[in-house]
Amino acid sequence: MPSHFDLISTDTATAARRGRLRTRHGVVETPIFMPVGTQGTVKALTPAHLHEIGAQIILGNTYHLNLRPTSELVAEMGGLHEFMGWNKPILTDSGGFQVFSLAKLRKLKPDGIEFQSHIDGKKLFLGPKEVMQIQTNLGSDIAMVIDECPPWPCDRDACASAVERSFRWAGQCRDIAVDSGFFEAGHHLFGIVQGSTFDDQRREAAESLATLDLPGYAVGGVSVGEPEPEMLKQVGATTPFMPADKPRYTMGLGTPPQLLKMVALGVDMFDCVLPSRVARNGLVFTPNGPINLRNEKFRLDKSPIVEGLDNYTCRNFTRAYLRHLLLAEEMLAGTLLTLHNLHFYLDLMAQVRAHLEAGDYASWHLEWIARYEAGLASR
Amino acid sequence: MPSHFDLISTDTATAARRGRLRTRHGVVETPIFMPVGTQGTVKALTPAHLHEIGAQIILGNTYHLNLRPTSELVAEMGGLHEFMGWNKPILTDSGGFQVFSLAKLRKLKPDGIEFQSHIDGKKLFLGPKEVMQIQTNLGSDIAMVIDECPPWPCDRDACASAVERSFRWAGQCRDIAVDSGFFEAGHHLFGIVQGSTFDDQRREAAESLATLDLPGYAVGGVSVGEPEPEMLKQVGATTPFMPADKPRYTMGLGTPPQLLKMVALGVDMFDCVLPSRVARNGLVFTPNGPINLRNEKFRLDKSPIVEGLDNYTCRNFTRAYLRHLLLAEEMLAGTLLTLHNLHFYLDLMAQVRAHLEAGDYASWHLEWIARYEAGLASR
Repeated sequence: MPSHFDLISTDTATAARRGRLRTRHGVVETPIFMPVGTQGTVKALTPAHLHEIGAQIILGNTYHLNLRPTSELVAEMGGLHEFMGWNKPILTDSGGFQVFSLAKLRKLKPDGIEFQSHIDGKKLFLGPKEVMQIQTNLGSDIAMVIDECPPWPCDRDACASAVERSFRWAGQCRDIAVDSGFFEAGHHLFGIVQGSTFDDQRREAAESLATLDLPGYAVGGVSVGEPEPEMLKQVGATTPFMPADKPRYTMGLGTPPQLLKMVALGVDMFDCVLPSRVARNGLVFTPNGPINLRNEKFRLDKSPIVEGLDNYTCRNFTRAYLRHLLLAEEMLAGTLLTLHNLHFYLDLMAQVRAHLEAGDYASWHLEWIARYEAGLASR
Repeated sequence: MPSHFDLISTDTATAARRGRLRTRHGVVETPIFMPVGTQGTVKALTPAHLHEIGAQIILGNTYHLNLRPTSELVAEMGGLHEFMGWNKPILTDSGGFQVFSLAKLRKLKPDGIEFQSHIDGKKLFLGPKEVMQIQTNLGSDIAMVIDECPPWPCDRDACASAVERSFRWAGQCRDIAVDSGFFEAGHHLFGIVQGSTFDDQRREAAESLATLDLPGYAVGGVSVGEPEPEMLKQVGATTPFMPADKPRYTMGLGTPPQLLKMVALGVDMFDCVLPSRVARNGLVFTPNGPINLRNEKFRLDKSPIVEGLDNYTCRNFTRAYLRHLLLAEEMLAGTLLTLHNLHFYLDLMAQVRAHLEAGDYASWHLEWIARYEAGLASR
């Protein structure tokens, strides 16, 4: 039986990798960006739009879906794919991160986290047993273990205890996946490497998690308020100790240059709400940096957001029209700009894969970043 | 040269008509419903969605577009079709109705209406000269004359003076259309019949406007607060005196049964914000009456809004999922429900045309209304 992950090639000048991940709902070519579908929809887009822009896999948020409409309802409706009309792979997070960032009155217990819903204050509990049951109900192609994400900054001892607890919970999730037939049915479960800014703890966490032989691993605890150099340092201190034959995923990141830099550090998978969230405010990405379409200077601009970029928004609409939709607070602005921004990210990752195949990723990605940052600086 | 309007057939049992209207941007099969695109977008839908659901012609609102982004900007961007990416016909209203319903501090003058913008309080003026210039800037396929829409109820003398002023302005708009080459370039201009609840004034208005030999005529001054029987009475008191060889349009109406009843009275064209507006609140149309998807009883409902209806929403999504999107306040709810409701209206008009061709419109439309109203009553 073929492995679920093929490492097709590793770049010679960087640690970048070209890979292929098999799931129950099809193949994912890596490196890849995953649009975020928090509440059972990638905000503002139809599944048809997602297919059009080349989305291979999307994310669902366990925390949100479990609160509303509940994972039991999703299961009764045939699972998340069927429920939301998306027939390609879905990765779900475990909900642990949202418990730390959104929920009220958290209390850490040995077998999980007690907290109150941010919607109605209802008392809830998430531990290994619960997150595996929820992600089974959702029918995730790739489930995530529940972990404790330490804040930034945090002290050494608090971090060590989070790493220890996360490892224990990861093992429990794995055992459940084995015993329940989750793995046998072709679902994947990814571990999460914590360790904050402590390189030794990150290495230790990566190496101990590797002994669980999980189908993939994520770098967690980044994008929690730390500056970009610190974030990249943490990713770079983690990836070398993650198994080379498993996909690697950094959670919740980042800007286009950050994605390219993390690819160079050997990361294969990304997700981020940034492109969707800023789109709804009028900020759109171009190879020369982001621009805000609310700006007066686009009032009569007849050019598309990006000349020649093959997506519905760029093929059909001028900057002037998109600016009008934004100022008139029309919903269509959210749809067209989200479509563009997510396509920009997906297209960037397609370029990444092509340049990895061509063997010139190192020079290409530095030039790409230089052009993008020059555009930023000139504004 | 063929006429711009072919009256293909007139029903024998009702006054319903099957027709075909030629415009600069293509042919419109009547009876037809026109989705409303107030601010240069049919709210929540892309032009691709509009093509998918079979929209033949859409509406643009002169009042709104003239305030923002301004008709001069639209002209500079190549006209409204080019600006919003819509290559089929567009009808624009004259803005007069919105001046009466939205603007502040109106003052009637002999050559137009002085008012303040509802957005920024700016002083503005709309008369025959201005509305013809604006609709020329927009590149309307069908422009409307400016008129005075009397409120409901209104007294006989006030109505007579509105009818008189509207007739004078209609003549001025017509003269401008002749002199400016508006007609010659293939644009149409429709007159508007006022007269409130006074049958004699409606007849007089219709007959005097007919002498202007305009390319089409609308019933105005309905849907301004009067009860449905009064509205239908006014339409029925007007259509017999409108030229049979010109398209007839009732402005701003109505529910599905109202549309069918007005078709039976000889109306060819309709527009209404109702299906879009209620969609955003969760109300969707079915042949058995409207249902509100927020209702608890749809929590686990695996059926589409309407079984077998061939639109993207009904083909792909359950009532339970759409209810979830509404409760989670996801934008996609607005898109999918607007798409369904507008398709429902467009599909209903396609059925109307088919039954007119089959010759059984009279019985079919009564049965359709009975089924719809029985569903309403059973809730």
